[in-house]
Amino acid sequence: MAKKNNSRTNNSTPQREMNSTDQKTMAALTGLADQIVSAAERGRAPHLDIPSRSLSNVRYNSSKRFIEMGSGKNRRELFNLSQAKSYMQTVLVSSGCKQLIEEDKSTSIRGLYYLLKHTIEGAREETFDDQSDCDPVIEDVEVTLNTLREELHVYASNRGSMVGNITLIDSGDEIDCSRMGSGGYSIPSIVEPEVVEFHKCDAKFVLHVEKDTVWRRFNEDKFWRKHDCILTHGGGQPPRGVRRLLHRLNHELQLPVYCLLDNDPWGYYIYSVLKQGSINLAYESRRMAVPNARYVGLRSKDYERCGLSPSVTINLSETDIKRAKQIASYPWFEKKKPWQKEIEQMLKNGFKLEVEALISKNISYVTEEYVPARLNDQDFLD
Amino acid sequence: MAKKNNSRTNNSTPQREMNSTDQKTMAALTGLADQIVSAAERGRAPHLDIPSRSLSNVRYNSSKRFIEMGSGKNRRELFNLSQAKSYMQTVLVSSGCKQLIEEDKSTSIRGLYYLLKHTIEGAREETFDDQSDCDPVIEDVEVTLNTLREELHVYASNRGSMVGNITLIDSGDEIDCSRMGSGGYSIPSIVEPEVVEFHKCDAKFVLHVEKDTVWRRFNEDKFWRKHDCILTHGGGQPPRGVRRLLHRLNHELQLPVYCLLDNDPWGYYIYSVLKQGSINLAYESRRMAVPNARYVGLRSKDYERCGLSPSVTINLSETDIKRAKQIASYPWFEKKKPWQKEIEQMLKNGFKLEVEALISKNISYVTEEYVPARLNDQDFLD
Repeated sequence: MAKKNNSRTNNSTPQREMNSTDQKTMAALTGLADQIVSAAERGRAPHLDIPSRSLSNVRYNSSKRFIEMGSGKNRRELFNLSQAKSYMQTVLVSSGCKQLIEEDKSTSIRGLYYLLKHTIEGAREETFDDQSDCDPVIEDVEVTLNTLREELHVYASNRGSMVGNITLIDSGDEIDCSRMGSGGYSIPSIVEPEVVEFHKCDAKFVLHVEKDTVWRRFNEDKFWRKHDCILTHGGGQPPRGVRRLLHRLNHELQLPVYCLLDNDPWGYYIYSVLKQGSINLAYESRRMAVPNARYVGLRSKDYERCGLSPSVTINLSETDIKRAKQIASYPWFEKKKPWQKEIEQMLKNGFKLEVEALISKNISYVTEEYVPARLNDQDFLD
Repeated sequence: MAKKNNSRTNNSTPQREMNSTDQKTMAALTGLADQIVSAAERGRAPHLDIPSRSLSNVRYNSSKRFIEMGSGKNRRELFNLSQAKSYMQTVLVSSGCKQLIEEDKSTSIRGLYYLLKHTIEGAREETFDDQSDCDPVIEDVEVTLNTLREELHVYASNRGSMVGNITLIDSGDEIDCSRMGSGGYSIPSIVEPEVVEFHKCDAKFVLHVEKDTVWRRFNEDKFWRKHDCILTHGGGQPPRGVRRLLHRLNHELQLPVYCLLDNDPWGYYIYSVLKQGSINLAYESRRMAVPNARYVGLRSKDYERCGLSPSVTINLSETDIKRAKQIASYPWFEKKKPWQKEIEQMLKNGFKLEVEALISKNISYVTEEYVPARLNDQDFLD
């Protein structure tokens, strides 16, 4: 039956043949441990230098065109009453990830929390009080070791589907995304090259749509077949797996990525994260951002251009107005006149427009007229 | 380019070859319209009799073992000031669904709302003020015509994935669920036999797990291959498509359905809805409930039985306690002693247990020991 691996006593796990990513991550993890041992042997107080994830250490790199972290670091010391616990937690999470890689298994952030949660021997203290205690430590380890969470064998929830003219090898299975029916291929959380390999691709571009319901319209109309493309969605703000996959499709296969999003601050923000990365996860931009992404979503001028009815507009709320102004002042939007004009026009309109509103023209207007016209005229925002 | 179908003038749409479900639904829709015409011709005030969806018209049918609607109906009249608008909305939604079926297209409830929303000619009145105005009317039409939303070509959002020893035909594509890699087949919202056909099935049962993260553990460990089964999840409370698919797998292929859910009121509730249907959507139980489903989720006795650490327990909140008592008093749980004992024990424990907590034993404990032991001992709740 099951291997009897206790989470705290896994020294006996036999070494498996590791792929190169796992070898690299493992080296980083053991490097971290070696530092501690060597500090102890030299009679020095062990410490970890954790890159700072605070706002002040995040900046927009205009040549790379994404948000990245600065070089600021915070020292975390074992022999410091206020830091000892988080020091210990950092080492504990690292050892949990080491165990996952050794066993060639992966788990969710919740799973890792449960794997490591226990009462500290001889004390009444818990390693973690709850998951919110553990999650930031996972991010600390990611950033300290310069790895992605997925490389540490920890996954986020998966959401998002894909169809189109591409064949993948996922965990050894050949997945032909042009033969996936109405449901599509469910984009997993971990899409690193060791798990998901691009096998054959005839697509000329990727159309990423915001919502699964809009994605379904495009799939039903076999848009991807007519236009030779790949069709993805991320169920709103796309999860890590979808972002990483779009990054890989763009960087490895040189496929342009077009984003069909709503004409509202939330749509703008999704675009911003897809393209430049997010402030919270700035250390991941390098592997997730798609600086060449293009916005083919609804535009503030579409009310007039498409002759939409006032019935399908939605009035901007106070929050919408505030968010829109914030987004307009992002350094990466600030100097782009078309974006400034776009946001200004939305504020002037006083309303937002969802992609679904185009259905008031006719059911397939979005797949048969709107998007083809935008692509044909190269009419998108950068 | 696009067919020029305006949503309000679609009389010219050529008739397509319809499958039998579409023919049936179409007959129900035109039957509704014919009633109105005939009332008008006889100089009578047109009305609709809408089955009542109120709590008082819902009951548990202990021989069918699911929640169903009673025979109560509400009359909706055109020549009644307080009912005229909702009468008109009901007819409008019916005509929108007719258009969808005629064009062989489907849309989301949001799409249908946009399709039908407009200012009424010669008035300042909108057909619908917002979507919450339209959604209950869709349910009215479903229940009046005795159809499922999916048969009206309206879909919910899709969530949930599947892998295992089954091959489907989805919209003409053959989907071999045993070769779907780490991502799996994304379960669509519409899984009616006209869209999703069961082609070949070697599986002996279905294991439905609550969360995608747990599903992934089972998929990584290829549980479905070892145990010859189908593995599904519904991302929490399963959406309509997942429920309907489980119903079909159970009723058409006679596969037992086992549900791996958390030992908490939410897990119990998910089980209750999967098995007996929900109060809100009682009219759908007949097509969605799985009265033979079995609970193999975490049990209140597992804290002791599995030797779990107090670290992984989560204290019950006030809301949890209230919900647990409510669930214990459901007519379909009320007379089941094992369920009463189960809920009583949880309340006595004072804590709940998530499936992920088993990872504290070891990463694959749930796939290699827990579930195999439950299945082997036929140790589940009914």
